[in-house]
Amino acid sequence: MATVSREDFSCAAATNESAYRRVTVPVLKIEAGPGPAVALMAGVHGDEWEGQAAILDLWHHLPGILQRGTVYLLPAVNAEASLAGTRLSPSDGGNLNRAFLGQPARGYTESVAAALEARLLPRIQALVDVHSGGASLRYLPSSVITRYGDDPYDARLPGLARAFGLPQCIYFRGSEAGSMPAAASRHGVLRLSAEIGGGRETSGSLVERCRDGLLGCLGELGLLPGRPLPRNPEIRLYDLDAPAATLRAREPGVFIPGVELGQSVAAHQRIGQMIEPARPDTPARALVSPQAGTVVCLRAIARSSDGDCLFQIAPALPLDSLSSRY
Amino acid sequence: MATVSREDFSCAAATNESAYRRVTVPVLKIEAGPGPAVALMAGVHGDEWEGQAAILDLWHHLPGILQRGTVYLLPAVNAEASLAGTRLSPSDGGNLNRAFLGQPARGYTESVAAALEARLLPRIQALVDVHSGGASLRYLPSSVITRYGDDPYDARLPGLARAFGLPQCIYFRGSEAGSMPAAASRHGVLRLSAEIGGGRETSGSLVERCRDGLLGCLGELGLLPGRPLPRNPEIRLYDLDAPAATLRAREPGVFIPGVELGQSVAAHQRIGQMIEPARPDTPARALVSPQAGTVVCLRAIARSSDGDCLFQIAPALPLDSLSSRY
Amino acid sequence: MATVSREDFSCAAATNESAYRRVTVPVLKIEAGPGPAVALMAGVHGDEWEGQAAILDLWHHLPGILQRGTVYLLPAVNAEASLAGTRLSPSDGGNLNRAFLGQPARGYTESVAAALEARLLPRIQALVDVHSGGASLRYLPSSVITRYGDDPYDARLPGLARAFGLPQCIYFRGSEAGSMPAAASRHGVLRLSAEIGGGRETSGSLVERCRDGLLGCLGELGLLPGRPLPRNPEIRLYDLDAPAATLRAREPGVFIPGVELGQSVAAHQRIGQMIEPARPDTPARALVSPQAGTVVCLRAIARSSDGDCLFQIAPALPLDSLSSRY
Amino acid sequence: MATVSREDFSCAAATNESAYRRVTVPVLKIEAGPGPAVALMAGVHGDEWEGQAAILDLWHHLPGILQRGTVYLLPAVNAEASLAGTRLSPSDGGNLNRAFLGQPARGYTESVAAALEARLLPRIQALVDVHSGGASLRYLPSSVITRYGDDPYDARLPGLARAFGLPQCIYFRGSEAGSMPAAASRHGVLRLSAEIGGGRETSGSLVERCRDGLLGCLGELGLLPGRPLPRNPEIRLYDLDAPAATLRAREPGVFIPGVELGQSVAAHQRIGQMIEPARPDTPARALVSPQAGTVVCLRAIARSSDGDCLFQIAPALPLDSLSSRY
Amino acid sequence: MATVSREDFSCAAATNESAYRRVTVPVLKIEAGPGPAVALMAGVHGDEWEGQAAILDLWHHLPGILQRGTVYLLPAVNAEASLAGTRLSPSDGGNLNRAFLGQPARGYTESVAAALEARLLPRIQALVDVHSGGASLRYLPSSVITRYGDDPYDARLPGLARAFGLPQCIYFRGSEAGSMPAAASRHGVLRLSAEIGGGRETSGSLVERCRDGLLGCLGELGLLPGRPLPRNPEIRLYDLDAPAATLRAREPGVFIPGVELGQSVAAHQRIGQMIEPARPDTPARALVSPQAGTVVCLRAIARSSDGDCLFQIAPALPLDSLSSRY
Amino acid sequence: MATVSREDFSCAAATNESAYRRVTVPVLKIEAGPGPAVALMAGVHGDEWEGQAAILDLWHHLPGILQRGTVYLLPAVNAEASLAGTRLSPSDGGNLNRAFLGQPARGYTESVAAALEARLLPRIQALVDVHSGGASLRYLPSSVITRYGDDPYDARLPGLARAFGLPQCIYFRGSEAGSMPAAASRHGVLRLSAEIGGGRETSGSLVERCRDGLLGCLGELGLLPGRPLPRNPEIRLYDLDAPAATLRAREPGVFIPGVELGQSVAAHQRIGQMIEPARPDTPARALVSPQAGTVVCLRAIARSSDGDCLFQIAPALPLDSLSSRY
Repeated sequence: MATVSREDFSCAAATNESAYRRVTVPVLKIEAGPGPAVALMAGVHGDEWEGQAAILDLWHHLPGILQRGTVYLLPAVNAEASLAGTRLSPSDGGNLNRAFLGQPARGYTESVAAALEARLLPRIQALVDVHSGGASLRYLPSSVITRYGDDPYDARLPGLARAFGLPQCIYFRGSEAGSMPAAASRHGVLRLSAEIGGGRETSGSLVERCRDGLLGCLGELGLLPGRPLPRNPEIRLYDLDAPAATLRAREPGVFIPGVELGQSVAAHQRIGQMIEPARPDTPARALVSPQAGTVVCLRAIARSSDGDCLFQIAPALPLDSLSSRY
Repeated sequence: MATVSREDFSCAAATNESAYRRVTVPVLKIEAGPGPAVALMAGVHGDEWEGQAAILDLWHHLPGILQRGTVYLLPAVNAEASLAGTRLSPSDGGNLNRAFLGQPARGYTESVAAALEARLLPRIQALVDVHSGGASLRYLPSSVITRYGDDPYDARLPGLARAFGLPQCIYFRGSEAGSMPAAASRHGVLRLSAEIGGGRETSGSLVERCRDGLLGCLGELGLLPGRPLPRNPEIRLYDLDAPAATLRAREPGVFIPGVELGQSVAAHQRIGQMIEPARPDTPARALVSPQAGTVVCLRAIARSSDGDCLFQIAPALPLDSLSSRY
Repeated sequence: MATVSREDFSCAAATNESAYRRVTVPVLKIEAGPGPAVALMAGVHGDEWEGQAAILDLWHHLPGILQRGTVYLLPAVNAEASLAGTRLSPSDGGNLNRAFLGQPARGYTESVAAALEARLLPRIQALVDVHSGGASLRYLPSSVITRYGDDPYDARLPGLARAFGLPQCIYFRGSEAGSMPAAASRHGVLRLSAEIGGGRETSGSLVERCRDGLLGCLGELGLLPGRPLPRNPEIRLYDLDAPAATLRAREPGVFIPGVELGQSVAAHQRIGQMIEPARPDTPARALVSPQAGTVVCLRAIARSSDGDCLFQIAPALPLDSLSSRY
Repeated sequence: MATVSREDFSCAAATNESAYRRVTVPVLKIEAGPGPAVALMAGVHGDEWEGQAAILDLWHHLPGILQRGTVYLLPAVNAEASLAGTRLSPSDGGNLNRAFLGQPARGYTESVAAALEARLLPRIQALVDVHSGGASLRYLPSSVITRYGDDPYDARLPGLARAFGLPQCIYFRGSEAGSMPAAASRHGVLRLSAEIGGGRETSGSLVERCRDGLLGCLGELGLLPGRPLPRNPEIRLYDLDAPAATLRAREPGVFIPGVELGQSVAAHQRIGQMIEPARPDTPARALVSPQAGTVVCLRAIARSSDGDCLFQIAPALPLDSLSSRY
Repeated sequence: MATVSREDFSCAAATNESAYRRVTVPVLKIEAGPGPAVALMAGVHGDEWEGQAAILDLWHHLPGILQRGTVYLLPAVNAEASLAGTRLSPSDGGNLNRAFLGQPARGYTESVAAALEARLLPRIQALVDVHSGGASLRYLPSSVITRYGDDPYDARLPGLARAFGLPQCIYFRGSEAGSMPAAASRHGVLRLSAEIGGGRETSGSLVERCRDGLLGCLGELGLLPGRPLPRNPEIRLYDLDAPAATLRAREPGVFIPGVELGQSVAAHQRIGQMIEPARPDTPARALVSPQAGTVVCLRAIARSSDGDCLFQIAPALPLDSLSSRY
Repeated sequence: MATVSREDFSCAAATNESAYRRVTVPVLKIEAGPGPAVALMAGVHGDEWEGQAAILDLWHHLPGILQRGTVYLLPAVNAEASLAGTRLSPSDGGNLNRAFLGQPARGYTESVAAALEARLLPRIQALVDVHSGGASLRYLPSSVITRYGDDPYDARLPGLARAFGLPQCIYFRGSEAGSMPAAASRHGVLRLSAEIGGGRETSGSLVERCRDGLLGCLGELGLLPGRPLPRNPEIRLYDLDAPAATLRAREPGVFIPGVELGQSVAAHQRIGQMIEPARPDTPARALVSPQAGTVVCLRAIARSSDGDCLFQIAPALPLDSLSSRY
């Protein structure tokens, strides 16, 4: 029923072995009549797999079920990083989520950002941009809301988060220059994100939860009118912007967490340790929770060094408290 | 009560930046009177953390509780790889578990093997050598028995495996030249191993299970006479030597397992898929179970390539069936 | 008779091993009285050898024969890349042909571009900037015309191309921000380029054709009045800007071209294949010509991956048709 | 008519990212009744493509035409290097053509050699092992004869070379320890080789010549009785073992050959030069032919350094003179 | 007596192994009542150790002796490079001393510069920023004055240089865009620097001279009223901006200096040679002094290549001559 | 008067970029009639420059002054490492001083060792093999005696050490398998070594001392009968084999030595510290002398890690005490 067309674009990424190399970013446009234009996107960081697999699944199945509006599917928006399985782009080391600088593009990563600003963001009203912990972190599956002020469409964010169907929602104040949410905000595009799983691995069940969440969002946005909406009545909100939410390693060592994702901890509770098995004379260093709350994020790599994020912990708030935050 | 002494040794590992560099392998000798000499060892592969953390814990606590015999603790036997967090030795790329060649040592890794053959193996009667899935694999926590024939001490292996306390036991025929079990066999040393967890991460609870297992083995071997033995009555044995036990990737892609560690699967059941989100025209490739059984081992990295081990699956056997195997 | 002076300049390219390192770009200024100032340049990409060798030859011989005007010789304008034999600058990975950004220079490559914009482009009226296929491509020897609009000096380009003496001429619309032709256009400098040979190798005969072409251009520009001009009456023009001119690899494999440079092919003709000898179960993928025309450019590396340019193919047009193109 | 079976084998090649990684070497066994067993092999060096593509072609077509005997096809015997496109194995830097050491295998490359010595060489009577110039050299298409003394089967080598059908034949005394020809000689296996093309590229026509040569050899060996033999009556023999046959670079520079493959040169003739475009004050260094003869091999990379082979030049001899050589 | 507080800041430096990695730059603020605010800083290049060690020493001892004003201590301002022991930042290859571009920060190095411009420079009146030869150079211990014009506070520079207590002072015209001195000048901050020692090593005595110099500067600036000032009456000034002051290598080779730091040489005196022991036919190349003067700086690495700074040599001038220079 | 001939040899060192690459080791044979055959050698480690420069100097001057016997000069015996400026061979990471294994050569480094055992050691009676601290260490200029037992020619070692003319002499028991001294001992070749300077740099005056020492040895061995012998009457002997002679780093940090080469220290005297400027909360770690004696060797790199040699310190003994040592 829906009309399908490819809108792939490509960006130059020359190497010494390939003078005119271009990386193709696959894009599928699915048109099903009147209604808003929405982009579903994953792979801003190439090592975040849940969203990539879920959107690839929709690439094959959404054309058969979309009822209204237009959907752009971008399963691997940083295609070069996805093919390499890395957070950053291999050809220039760029972080696509810091490359929306609004300046002449230097290199491949900024070219992808520029193409999205020129071709995609002006054509859509809403964007769901799925992230994950990637190679180095592991998240409690959560939707993510980033606010840049008191924009009119912000009022729609709690509903969209509920439609995504995960029992947790993370809140960030938009503050990183050059980020994808900043670009969406500049273009007046309603944007929800998510953090689902992580580590270098994923699983079929996490991919399914992600796909269901994306379908839920399309339903909430009016593109799947007949589909029942998964309304999670009790979403817990975690404000991860507070400096106390993040515990970082302060020196090299092997990270042994003593708690699990989703566990509740007290302030100053011992939640793990840093050890060094090859130097048994080095005392183990205890890690204590910087504040009371739930473990929302955990480092997925034991061998760590100073500055690495080990834990993100925040108290659970009602989702309604979002309206008072910015 | 026990006497403690350091028996560290070091091996040359010169680099362009350090002409006389030596890597120190920490060893603690704990003597508690008559009784067998036993080594507890981890870090043959530097990225396998459970045993390293558990033996580091015993480094501090075992001297206070050991009652008989002698224990050598080697928490990070490939210390260079442990400090780097890698399976292989950074200085020469060597795999310590293939370096027991009985030839003049070339480079650091073979020097460590030679030192163990010269200094440790002749002095002990038993060895527990803890492994794990490491960075690339994830194991159902299991003890591991490797047999090199019908040695008299093999009869003691089921008891040792029961004392380790894990509900699973993996069986291998000893076949890899230059391995640590081959060296132990040459020296007539009774050896149990284990595969506990994996991925690049670990957790406090896995470390505790490993430490309890090591203490159980010491008890079984008679060094902790007062300690109650954790006798797991129903250990399931998995023979992972059968070629059908291992499913490997046949081409590059992103591995999405559809089953979990410990799950039972039928032969030819679909158990996952390989996808390529950045190339949506590439068909997903279904992965089917090569035989009926339990998922004992799973690749911990989504981005995979041909030859990577994705699954190990084997039917559960009674532990007693071990006696008929070699 | 001509006056010779060195106008070398250098650009900072510090490394961890050399704090004040500067790369010197050799420049020879040859003055022979009144007449236009012309620069002959090669090595914008360090792995393109024909022009570099030809201009090095002129470095020794042109002072003895130049009769009018001023010539600047830059045999290796990206000297660092030339010494490394790479397309991109080793110190910062930059592509000099994308570094004319008109912004404060970040790093060595942009510094070279800035120096050329400050020191060379304001002093010349014409520029011949020789390229080649470099390590990864192989071109049918061709002059190259890039147009940025309908500039008055564009009318002189066909004559200059004829004077270069090669039977082929490639046409590009100027579209790449930061390129050398864009910078020349900004400075009102008449510019001809060429693509001669390629692969990682070259030959004495290609170098001679390039040197003769450069002398032909100087003759056409009035600097060698006595020298007979090599006027090629039948230059074929190839428009390589059309998307259909370029065939790229769509997945990894070994590229086996079935046609040769200069060969005429029909649209949809089978012109090669991608194979994978180590995976004989992978079907070979046939490559078909995207349009009818002549094979003007061919990838010089068998092992290829998605996005690599494999062929450039375009129909031959009369050179006069250039005037109607932009 | 012929019976086909897979005889793939695999060798361990663990990395930090893949603990149990094995590289599969594809082998096809084609049985067509009584007659000798012959192996056709390519990819000892992973960057030599003509033989790999030709044997892959036979993989699909030979089963339909083989009439007698048994053929083993190994299109990519160093499968890891073929997939990487490199001469040496990526995992351990090994050169498979120096890995037949008859000692316990250290690492992947020696494991492949050991598997060939254990599984293939004892089962065959003849071997055609196709090489090429690879990434760094370019050869005049030639068969290659290596002699290890005055073996009885040596008398069959000229006939086999004629059957391969190329107008040139290269002669080497077998002298490199650990080489494939040395292993074949130890096992009493008649062995012909070839050097066809090179550079990092190849072409369909070179692949065809290689495939035809392999079929010619099978015919000469009696496996294709009905097929007419391509008997080249005037094969020229080139002895490349004489030290004077090889001219090497003596210092870094850019290599500009002044002659072409197949060209005849006089002794001390100027045949090229080494230049340095980025340092125009460095004098060009003339290269002169070390002896009179034909240019049989040429370096395929302009940027060179001391010790690199630039030319192989030898006088043409009648093929019959082979009998007097060892 | 003085009040101490931490003013550490951190900058994002994500890698593929650590998504949210931040590098912390340690800052100590010591307040001792009224008086100017002064920053003491080292480690702009991570491999320059004298200042880093001296300021780390003051970190522990200055709070006990500071009498007036406010001091900010930044012992390792490019903390990432200090931990790696490199001149440039490991994560992005940036040179912090060229990163003060006043543009939106791209990457870690520019983020550190931006943080210093936002947080430190507006709060201080004076800055002593200690450098050294780093890994590749060795300096005669010298204070350094960089002038950007005829600023009013320039008159205080000779006094500050005398207070630093070293017998040599180097003069530079400020010319490098994006440098720390340029940023200080933009903010109206009086700035003295120093070049003390170098090579990859340092010594306790050089560290002490640096610490005494820093205390001398604080005294001169009025923050240590009771402390006697080390007034060196006869400081020699060296203008290293003259092109003739620097001798660079012109080709690869092994650098053998024939003179020592601090030695006086005549113009055109032979002061060393470049040799190539592995190529004894290559003639040694004599190095001659470009002008008469004192050897102020010497390359600390024998193996060198073109563009590497080998010597800086300048005639000694009276410090008073500084006033006439810009 | 003396006859000069080149005896260069070359060893295969293929790379992916150069299939037949061979590294040439330059050797000059100088014959001046009857008398012993002596080799002077440097560059076993490519980053040790004093001996390389001194022997290169003798290459040009010794033929004019040699009066008796035969001298082989090998200025850069690991030519590949010398050209790279590294201790270890770049192509295979080998340490030439551990490559004399008497087994079939694997790779370039063992090939050089094999060639020396086959071609050089059988032809000479004495060898002076000059070493240095190399990139990572700095030595008090010393001759070096390594003993493998009570060989008859050992009695000549003190005289040879005196003839070398340096005031210090280091003593080692020969214990490293595969070393150059072990190979010399196997061949019955009298061998003296030296350790002169170090760091990545050298100086003309150190080179001269080395050259004079080599001439002194030739005099002592009877090849320069007319030349006065530099007999240093009071050479101090340092036994560096005692474990207490070497102090190593035990953890990462920046090494600040508090003493200088040649300085006398007491046992347990504080001789330096390890600090970490970027982590000011990490306490400095004091380094104390492991025994009383003279500082004979010092690490030349501040940034250090566990296992790096920081100091070698030993008490001065009379040279005559050597006879009682083995």
